[in-house]
Amino acid sequence: MSTEANGEAESQARPLLSSEVSPLAQSTSQVAVVGANLCPIESLDYEISENDFFKQDWRTNSTVQIFQYVFMKWLLCFLIGGIVSLVGFCNNLAVETVAGIKFVVISYMMLAQRSVMAFVVFSVSNLMLTLLAALITAFVSSAAAGSGIPEVKAYLNGVDAPGIFSLKTLFVKIIGSISAVSSSLLVGKAGPMVHIGACVASLLGQGGSKKYGLTWSWLRFFKNDRDRRDLVTCGSAAGIAAAFRAPIGGLLFALEEMVSWWRSALLWRAFFTTAIVAIILVGLIDFCDSGKCGPFGKGGLIMFDVSSTNVSYDLWDVPPVLLLGVLGGLFGSLYNFLLDRVVQVYNSITGKCSGYKILLACFISIFTSCLLFGLPWLSSCLPCPADAEVVCPTVGQAGNYKKFQCPPGHYNDLASLIFNTNDDAIKNLFSKGTDNEFQYSSILIFFGTCFFLSIISYGIVSPTGLYVPVIVTGASYGRLIAMLVGSHSTLNHGIFAVLGAASFLGGTMRATVSACVILLELTNNLLMLPLMMLVLLASKTVADAFNNNIYDLIMKAKGFPYLEAHAEPFMRQLTVSDVVKGPLQLFHGIERVGNVVQVLRTTTHNGFPVIDESPLSESPVLYGLILRAHLIELLKKKAFLSSTEPTGIDVSEQFSVVDFAKKGSGNADKIEDVDVTNEEENMFLDLHPFTNTSPYTVVETMSLAKALILLRQVGLRHLLVIPKIYGRSPVVGILTRHDFMPEDILSSHPALTRSRWKGWRLTLPRWLNPH
Amino acid sequence: MSTEANGEAESQARPLLSSEVSPLAQSTSQVAVVGANLCPIESLDYEISENDFFKQDWRTNSTVQIFQYVFMKWLLCFLIGGIVSLVGFCNNLAVETVAGIKFVVISYMMLAQRSVMAFVVFSVSNLMLTLLAALITAFVSSAAAGSGIPEVKAYLNGVDAPGIFSLKTLFVKIIGSISAVSSSLLVGKAGPMVHIGACVASLLGQGGSKKYGLTWSWLRFFKNDRDRRDLVTCGSAAGIAAAFRAPIGGLLFALEEMVSWWRSALLWRAFFTTAIVAIILVGLIDFCDSGKCGPFGKGGLIMFDVSSTNVSYDLWDVPPVLLLGVLGGLFGSLYNFLLDRVVQVYNSITGKCSGYKILLACFISIFTSCLLFGLPWLSSCLPCPADAEVVCPTVGQAGNYKKFQCPPGHYNDLASLIFNTNDDAIKNLFSKGTDNEFQYSSILIFFGTCFFLSIISYGIVSPTGLYVPVIVTGASYGRLIAMLVGSHSTLNHGIFAVLGAASFLGGTMRATVSACVILLELTNNLLMLPLMMLVLLASKTVADAFNNNIYDLIMKAKGFPYLEAHAEPFMRQLTVSDVVKGPLQLFHGIERVGNVVQVLRTTTHNGFPVIDESPLSESPVLYGLILRAHLIELLKKKAFLSSTEPTGIDVSEQFSVVDFAKKGSGNADKIEDVDVTNEEENMFLDLHPFTNTSPYTVVETMSLAKALILLRQVGLRHLLVIPKIYGRSPVVGILTRHDFMPEDILSSHPALTRSRWKGWRLTLPRWLNPH
Repeated sequence: MSTEANGEAESQARPLLSSEVSPLAQSTSQVAVVGANLCPIESLDYEISENDFFKQDWRTNSTVQIFQYVFMKWLLCFLIGGIVSLVGFCNNLAVETVAGIKFVVISYMMLAQRSVMAFVVFSVSNLMLTLLAALITAFVSSAAAGSGIPEVKAYLNGVDAPGIFSLKTLFVKIIGSISAVSSSLLVGKAGPMVHIGACVASLLGQGGSKKYGLTWSWLRFFKNDRDRRDLVTCGSAAGIAAAFRAPIGGLLFALEEMVSWWRSALLWRAFFTTAIVAIILVGLIDFCDSGKCGPFGKGGLIMFDVSSTNVSYDLWDVPPVLLLGVLGGLFGSLYNFLLDRVVQVYNSITGKCSGYKILLACFISIFTSCLLFGLPWLSSCLPCPADAEVVCPTVGQAGNYKKFQCPPGHYNDLASLIFNTNDDAIKNLFSKGTDNEFQYSSILIFFGTCFFLSIISYGIVSPTGLYVPVIVTGASYGRLIAMLVGSHSTLNHGIFAVLGAASFLGGTMRATVSACVILLELTNNLLMLPLMMLVLLASKTVADAFNNNIYDLIMKAKGFPYLEAHAEPFMRQLTVSDVVKGPLQLFHGIERVGNVVQVLRTTTHNGFPVIDESPLSESPVLYGLILRAHLIELLKKKAFLSSTEPTGIDVSEQFSVVDFAKKGSGNADKIEDVDVTNEEENMFLDLHPFTNTSPYTVVETMSLAKALILLRQVGLRHLLVIPKIYGRSPVVGILTRHDFMPEDILSSHPALTRSRWKGWRLTLPRWLNPH
Repeated sequence: MSTEANGEAESQARPLLSSEVSPLAQSTSQVAVVGANLCPIESLDYEISENDFFKQDWRTNSTVQIFQYVFMKWLLCFLIGGIVSLVGFCNNLAVETVAGIKFVVISYMMLAQRSVMAFVVFSVSNLMLTLLAALITAFVSSAAAGSGIPEVKAYLNGVDAPGIFSLKTLFVKIIGSISAVSSSLLVGKAGPMVHIGACVASLLGQGGSKKYGLTWSWLRFFKNDRDRRDLVTCGSAAGIAAAFRAPIGGLLFALEEMVSWWRSALLWRAFFTTAIVAIILVGLIDFCDSGKCGPFGKGGLIMFDVSSTNVSYDLWDVPPVLLLGVLGGLFGSLYNFLLDRVVQVYNSITGKCSGYKILLACFISIFTSCLLFGLPWLSSCLPCPADAEVVCPTVGQAGNYKKFQCPPGHYNDLASLIFNTNDDAIKNLFSKGTDNEFQYSSILIFFGTCFFLSIISYGIVSPTGLYVPVIVTGASYGRLIAMLVGSHSTLNHGIFAVLGAASFLGGTMRATVSACVILLELTNNLLMLPLMMLVLLASKTVADAFNNNIYDLIMKAKGFPYLEAHAEPFMRQLTVSDVVKGPLQLFHGIERVGNVVQVLRTTTHNGFPVIDESPLSESPVLYGLILRAHLIELLKKKAFLSSTEPTGIDVSEQFSVVDFAKKGSGNADKIEDVDVTNEEENMFLDLHPFTNTSPYTVVETMSLAKALILLRQVGLRHLLVIPKIYGRSPVVGILTRHDFMPEDILSSHPALTRSRWKGWRLTLPRWLNPH
């Protein structure tokens, strides 16, 4: 099973069963596909950049190269911003147009009282669109399924799931997202936009494609993990910025939710990227406002107008707002719980079979169509308001007053919400001056529908975001509370809807600062800030008492070895020698080729300690750490010696830095591709110039908690364990992120489980857990 | 000289002369006072919390204590927010009232054409206010001089300058800031507010005062560096939030400019704090708007109304905006250069003498008064606009139309800018619909005056901020550009002023994201975002080509051993053994009391390795690291043994965790306070239970660059160096932040200077420098 071989990829010393990685990985196919081949990336670039060979690095070389690097860095950010904003814009325009045409056709049919025909058109078009999304996702790139945010977040933590940043994934994500969103499924586009942004960034940084000759030598500087991760961070910020036209919100989202390592310089570059997105979007929207983008070009990406006048509120508004927050926390944690379960159930039903997955998607689509078309019949018709500023009922365009089955001069408020894109529904709910537009029953039904549909829609094999559904759902119960509070509050219903959306975002994503700023930028009203903050505080606090945020739950279900920033208390009771296990594979400074090949073929480790023994050194000493990728490169170049004597040949003639550059995502060389003759097997390799001579080390008595802090804070891939008392080998083990997964440690130290669970019980209300 | 003893405080192995710490520290008195007694704090809490004794820590103990900790954590944030917002509000109200009364009196005198009398009143009141600020600063707390931001930034990096967070400093900072700002000096209140916020946070976290019985046992959890630093971060965010009523801006300011270590949980808590500030300020301003805060209660802290309608702009507006950005970069770097020089000149003039410093402050005040009163006479009078919405000329209140020497029905535009508080001047410059209110000459004179006066005012012995002067100066040349561009741009002059302020902030502070958000929150107009970003990008890029940001320059001048996040290229050429120097002081697990006392008395090191030799261990092994503070505590408690045999006495009976808690800033116990009799000197101390058994270690061949990354990323105070080959002592040295200061390393390895300067020359335009 492939998971087994690769799940262990990082672990030097421990035969790790796939079931240990994730109990789910065996039974669930989507998980198995994505969770397989996990290969932690070299987290920061310290490890690779400090062998003798790399010391003659370009960074200290010449002004020209430094200029090239800096120029490219900013150019790439500019390109990321430009491309992501264009994709976001086209995405939005396509959804507005496809869905708009669909709704207009249905609207005309309903006007002509041909409701059966309307239903057939509605459900068939939805089914076709869903099918398109599901087919390309299942057969072209299954890594494009779901939101993408958990994958990008795991990548930024150092977990490189295969194929998440390939060109195929990008293509599927764009097309799939457009068709899924316009198919009336309750899925969003923000998550996919984040993934698209990250994809664009990774592909740009990867330096085009060597296969197709589309590469540029200036891009060689980005062939390392740190620069690529920086680009991906900027890309994910650009994604949110493009989805919501919220540049600061996008920046804060990347900062709060995505990154594991943060630097001040990154803030500045991500800000530049989101600024480019904002500037281009403003230009494009201006262009569309003049009517050049088709009949539906004015929809979407437009800021919601909650209230341009001053928002005034007093102390009496605090209780309903607090209630909203608490409700948001309760609903949010319930939502997370249910979503997690539903995804697991889906995975156990469909298994790995693409056919079943597509069938499931079709079923969900048909079910959604039936529900959406059927529910408005439950709602009673309302007479059109006399002072309506727009035509009522709406004819031939998006609008707040859908006639549906109602008699002339009347509109169906539930249909108005349902037969619009989610963006337009949000706009309806957020808008001021619409306090009497909706009935209790309609809003209640709409809330239930959204809550339910968004949970069952997420897990299908298609790009599906969570942000927009969460906002719609939150806005609907915000409206509900507003109607219950009625005239007891000075706030208008639109503001309650915004606060409801904030509370639900706080309850599910647990993103506070970014959610707040995104909503403020959407509504362009900074005066709402205090209320927004209050509601987010309440909802996050309540929801944290029950479970984790939705992305962490999904990541856990996918079996990503995500490394938390803080150590669990029981790790203080252990030393690193408690988790290191043998046998340790190591190489000598001058190693027989056959040995290297055999070790690389029989293990999947990514790093090996190199030691020097006599005659090179009096007693065995640790020389450093060599990476698998570099060994394979050496074998491919056949830089062999005929004897164990170091020759002193200048390696820089044989190799260039580019040979050791990080390959693009999923393009790493494999040992199976290396052919070595019998004769060559008895030759030798001088590993010294390619060994990182300054690996980070810990003494075997170091507490596990502190070793974790070192691994996490410095962003290491390997940590060498050296003995406390001399006499044995100069290195006793190697630690990787897999050795720090709490579940694995507890399974091999069951005695700690009690203390862990005691710890958990104590801190069961998670908000009591100090972090 | 005190600097010498304490500048070395951290350095185990190297007799560090004060001149090595900072060439300036010897000649400049303000620097010497502040730079003396520098004592890096235990940066993260990992070092102290992992000895045997602390393993029975409260964190794993009981639910009640965890609840206490979490409750206190949020309560403290709430209190910080509440107190800082109240201080900010009172500060503002006091300035508005004091300055308001002064300006009204002068205004009436000018109306009565008694200009000599007006000048006397103006200059004498200014002098008195300046004198008050200077006197309390010089004699009560000299740590309150200047902005305070560099000190807080250094503290958050791990450098604890003495007295910066004392109650005296807080008092001086509040009163001094009010009187300095209202004395018409061109100084701001934002920097002092940041310091005030940090002070409040530190004092609250310190747990009141034991001396006065004002303490609470629940506060014991905060007696460690990490929690205290978290509180100070929240406090500094609250400071900016209160100064500008900009909660998100304050948060981002702390994140971008202040913190060295950032965690996601901190974002959330700082956000809570700034939210409290925002909510309380909204309430207080509402209260004042109803006229209950005296005649000047409506001024200040009110948002600037740049434009409530949509800001529309097109491509033709980009060139002037870019020009603004470039100018901002040029002016900004010039400003930084001049300010740095002026502060140095002041220090060399006044030396350590408080009298000279006060004289200098008085001179600057008189000079400022003369200049401000004299300049408006150069400006010609303008007729009052016919359609003015307010009374023109202004009588008896703050306003845009000061009559000054003009005939009735006319106003003096320069006087309108000068005879107002800085806040009101900014409001005038930022406001829309005032495109014809100012003349070229007046704005030009105002710009020159602000630029010049803010440079000469910063260095005086008084709390002086830089933020507001920078905004005023930037706004004035923004207006100037607007008048030059004239009708070629669709933007109104107020927007140009905002963009000018942004460009100058970008040029001096180099804060991009936070400056942008603060200005957006001040003007409440998110639509200006793209232009603001453009201008900030341009100004920061241009200014970075010349010098560093203003706070870093001031920190450097003060000699703080600030630890940068990235290693300099030449550090890759060195190993840690190149910077470690002997002799190393170490202790044995069971050590003679006399030895401990003698070592503590003769050195100033803060941490000592502990080794075990026979009979405790076959061969010498490193047991761990013990801190000076803990040794002193042991000596004070006289927990002595009569022989070298470990007794197995339970130390937890003799000590409680509180004994080893971090003392308040500047309250550390001193070895001089410990009395040990001759008899006791021959007894023994069992150091084992108090030794941190998991110190971070590096092998002596580790590259210096990577050791720096470890020290910085994990936030360590000490780093033990262990030998590569066994045979000598199990520990060969100890590294602290002082060992990583580039200047010190270069002075002992002059050969590297060439490669460093080569590096510098290569990257002379700093924007070419990859970071």
